[in-house]
Amino acid sequence: MSLPHSVRLVEVGPRDGLQNEKQPISVADKVRLTDDLTAAGLSYVEVGSFVSPKWVPQMAGSAEVFAGIQRKPGVTYAALAPNMRGLEAALEARVEEVAVFAAASEAFSQKNINCSIAESLERFVPLMEAAKAANVRVRGYVSCVLGCPYDGEVDAAQVASVARELYAMGCYEVSLGDTIGTGTAGQTRHLINVVGREVPRHLLAGHFHDTYGQALANVYASLLEGIAVFDSSVAGLGGCPYAKGATGNVATEDVLYLLQGLGIETGVDMDKLIDAGARICEVLGKANGSRVARARLANR
Amino acid sequence: MSLPHSVRLVEVGPRDGLQNEKQPISVADKVRLTDDLTAAGLSYVEVGSFVSPKWVPQMAGSAEVFAGIQRKPGVTYAALAPNMRGLEAALEARVEEVAVFAAASEAFSQKNINCSIAESLERFVPLMEAAKAANVRVRGYVSCVLGCPYDGEVDAAQVASVARELYAMGCYEVSLGDTIGTGTAGQTRHLINVVGREVPRHLLAGHFHDTYGQALANVYASLLEGIAVFDSSVAGLGGCPYAKGATGNVATEDVLYLLQGLGIETGVDMDKLIDAGARICEVLGKANGSRVARARLANR
Repeated sequence: MSLPHSVRLVEVGPRDGLQNEKQPISVADKVRLTDDLTAAGLSYVEVGSFVSPKWVPQMAGSAEVFAGIQRKPGVTYAALAPNMRGLEAALEARVEEVAVFAAASEAFSQKNINCSIAESLERFVPLMEAAKAANVRVRGYVSCVLGCPYDGEVDAAQVASVARELYAMGCYEVSLGDTIGTGTAGQTRHLINVVGREVPRHLLAGHFHDTYGQALANVYASLLEGIAVFDSSVAGLGGCPYAKGATGNVATEDVLYLLQGLGIETGVDMDKLIDAGARICEVLGKANGSRVARARLANR
Repeated sequence: MSLPHSVRLVEVGPRDGLQNEKQPISVADKVRLTDDLTAAGLSYVEVGSFVSPKWVPQMAGSAEVFAGIQRKPGVTYAALAPNMRGLEAALEARVEEVAVFAAASEAFSQKNINCSIAESLERFVPLMEAAKAANVRVRGYVSCVLGCPYDGEVDAAQVASVARELYAMGCYEVSLGDTIGTGTAGQTRHLINVVGREVPRHLLAGHFHDTYGQALANVYASLLEGIAVFDSSVAGLGGCPYAKGATGNVATEDVLYLLQGLGIETGVDMDKLIDAGARICEVLGKANGSRVARARLANR
């Protein structure tokens, strides 16, 4: 067993966390959240999404959010930009890095973005070229890597094939998303072994949801397989609208606690992170989804 | 990595789960819970506790509960019996196995049971002899194995020493309890390695609390170290009154989900287990603490 010495946490709270919130959230609150997170030491924040406001109304103000944040040196401020129009808007907003996503399951691809996996990948070709020309890195997400709400089991070979396509196309990193949170530790390790034959392991990230309480066990299983990048969401904000009962993204605080216990460096300050999560939960009037935050706040 | 082929789940819901509930719970509801759990396939249930009702009023009816349950062949019905008077009452109630507990931290021992660790162990000597004479097995618990609410860090060597004493005294199995849930996966593996030098690993059990969300990662870490017995509580009932913000025992449903994903046998039926948890939560008017149960119930 040899664990990584350091881990990069990709904070997805402001985007993946907030995108399904029904209530309006002001640009100021979104800016504050991002600034709080970088003040806590997070070096990568997915700030927003450049998609049609018809699809995701909550992300309509992403350009304003990018205009409002305090850009700290050494921090990557990223956004989801699934098509050319999105990329153009992202470039205008001085986004430093964009993310695209594809599903590992045909049914999810059809229901979520109305096209086949192959079609979704094809659409990224011009985007990848334009991003390269603009010197903007592209991160790839693969969703439903350990299960699909429509198809059930998803073959690891199918995930590997989609990950390989994204990598071949120019994505510098591929994040493997257990969108519905059904995966367990053994499946996670198997998946990494299979995908790792197509994409170098140090270019893979883990993105786990805690719907079935398995996220931290899956993070630990991934660490044992050499994965050193994890997506997480402060206060466990978010969740998948396609999975009922979903308790959402794994909480950044809980991942950080595990990593600290393992002596793995992240550069993140727990107290400031908990403050950032407590503040946005207050704004949203929501219970904090991080167990570490709940325990620490109760003891303060 | 070689995982155990099968795991024994020690269900502590009726005892550890209910003992801190403030509201009255009828004997009939306690009986029903135990019967539901064994109907789900659990082969070991800690049904109650024979302690002074002054200490733990919720456990006052344990003898009546033992009189009311349907005893299934092959199932062990156990009770906590921390002293001679408790053991006598347990024997009268036809308890098949009793449990005793000691703390790994001096401060916790003093505050929780008003004596030193050494004194608490000494008091077990006559109890162990009487239990042996009555042909009743004794299980030992060590609490605070990965942290103490008063002392903070707890040395693994200290845990090993207490575990060795309990084993030497005649406990056939020693359960290592992370009472306040602060332990992480690396500490868990270290602890098992250290304690495993004093007590054979196949006689050790893991007892994790999910206060910091780490319980399932710790179960997985323990499995990797060859541990094949885990204590858990249906619907995540319970928690430690000494740890504020405690979200309590790891939920049996969530542990079972992990084990099923790893292909490890338990003999437990998930649907019936979820039903048992849902029913007692309804009786208590409490939210279900199992993420698996919440996700599955939302999708039913």
